[in-house]
Amino acid sequence: MMNYKLTIQYDGGRYKGWQRLGDTEDTIQGKIERSLTELEGHTVEIIGSSRTDAGVHALAQIANVKLSKPLTAAELKRALNQSLPQDISVCSAEAVPERFHARYHAKRKTYLYKIWNKDYSNPFMRKYSMSITTPLDMARMRDASHYFIGTHDFTAYSNAKSKKKNAVRTIDTLTIEEKDGLIQIRVGGNGFLYNMVRKIVGTLIEVGLKEIEASAVPDILEAQRRDQTGLMADARGLYLEKIDF
Amino acid sequence: MMNYKLTIQYDGGRYKGWQRLGDTEDTIQGKIERSLTELEGHTVEIIGSSRTDAGVHALAQIANVKLSKPLTAAELKRALNQSLPQDISVCSAEAVPERFHARYHAKRKTYLYKIWNKDYSNPFMRKYSMSITTPLDMARMRDASHYFIGTHDFTAYSNAKSKKKNAVRTIDTLTIEEKDGLIQIRVGGNGFLYNMVRKIVGTLIEVGLKEIEASAVPDILEAQRRDQTGLMADARGLYLEKIDF
Repeated sequence: MMNYKLTIQYDGGRYKGWQRLGDTEDTIQGKIERSLTELEGHTVEIIGSSRTDAGVHALAQIANVKLSKPLTAAELKRALNQSLPQDISVCSAEAVPERFHARYHAKRKTYLYKIWNKDYSNPFMRKYSMSITTPLDMARMRDASHYFIGTHDFTAYSNAKSKKKNAVRTIDTLTIEEKDGLIQIRVGGNGFLYNMVRKIVGTLIEVGLKEIEASAVPDILEAQRRDQTGLMADARGLYLEKIDF
Repeated sequence: MMNYKLTIQYDGGRYKGWQRLGDTEDTIQGKIERSLTELEGHTVEIIGSSRTDAGVHALAQIANVKLSKPLTAAELKRALNQSLPQDISVCSAEAVPERFHARYHAKRKTYLYKIWNKDYSNPFMRKYSMSITTPLDMARMRDASHYFIGTHDFTAYSNAKSKKKNAVRTIDTLTIEEKDGLIQIRVGGNGFLYNMVRKIVGTLIEVGLKEIEASAVPDILEAQRRDQTGLMADARGLYLEKIDF
């Protein structure tokens, strides 16, 4: 068996997320496994670093897959790109040691969130950003962002569906850039709970709209209550950007 | 009557172009006129600088419209953006002298063409660029581009449907930039025939693929025969970028 590491981009707009749900094909994993299974002649499972949620995009999802068919990495990349739909692409493929595991060995993840913040919506970004026509106060948002950095119990920023008992995570980076109306928020850390990035961005937006104070963030975190957080940002603005191993 | 100048962006993907065709609503002009007619209470006609073709996008189409209802430009912009579909946006509106005519007074137009040139397609650009997986030779394309600059009879680069008798046009700019696999071709001039930009880009692509020589361009132009041009680039890669008055 050969083990391959794949770097995958996708427009998550029409999918129910990365993770395969039964035999349905409306997930990224389901689509890629169907292509791989056709190639191998028997059922194949692919392991993704991150289980992106319904509607969320990826600039560089990392996955690994073990195949028995003797293929070079370049041949695998070409065969997958020929059979995958146009909203999923394999940017690169490489042969890796058999022990490499895309999920277990992922040490750090970076997510990117895009907000379009002008008084008109952008026709080209409408499926790839959250559109907010009221001006956001960037200074306030940056003030609030500092409170998220560090090791915290993120129960308040988790989802009731999350089955993980331990909600302690470390965020090492949270940056906010703005250029020509496009706000880009990058969040990096050792792991993220279900919906955590979208809820953090939701709080930053509320601060930017002056609905809450930046200084309210520590209290929201400490309360560890999901009903203390407000807005959850749209899935269409979120991108899995980078996985570090 | 007040005359308003509008700057309009649109994703042309699902439309049959700018120009209204009878009473149908699947044109940009048709959609905007419906919104304006609702606002005015009677039929309104909007004049666009450029009749972009089916599937072609606009970053800054300029149009003018005369209204009897007393509205500030800001009110008109807000009302239109509230009623227009998400793939059409009014970026700005301003009151202009009654004599201003978006089509007659347009002196120069700039079109932008985007090519995605990597060995995998880009899920986010798939509707907004032409994807070419074979590497294009940029030096050859730039060589070919110089032959288009100047005043020429562009009959060879027109469409049989074009009713204009005089095919002489002046191209003053043709630049080709490449960054991270995205090639951007800008063509500026005093006017363009139906399909002219897409056919010029098609020739540049053929030169970049080494299917024809750059030095073949003058002969193609001089022959003034439509059957001497080959590829016509996809509508999805073309954007009306700028109108000068």
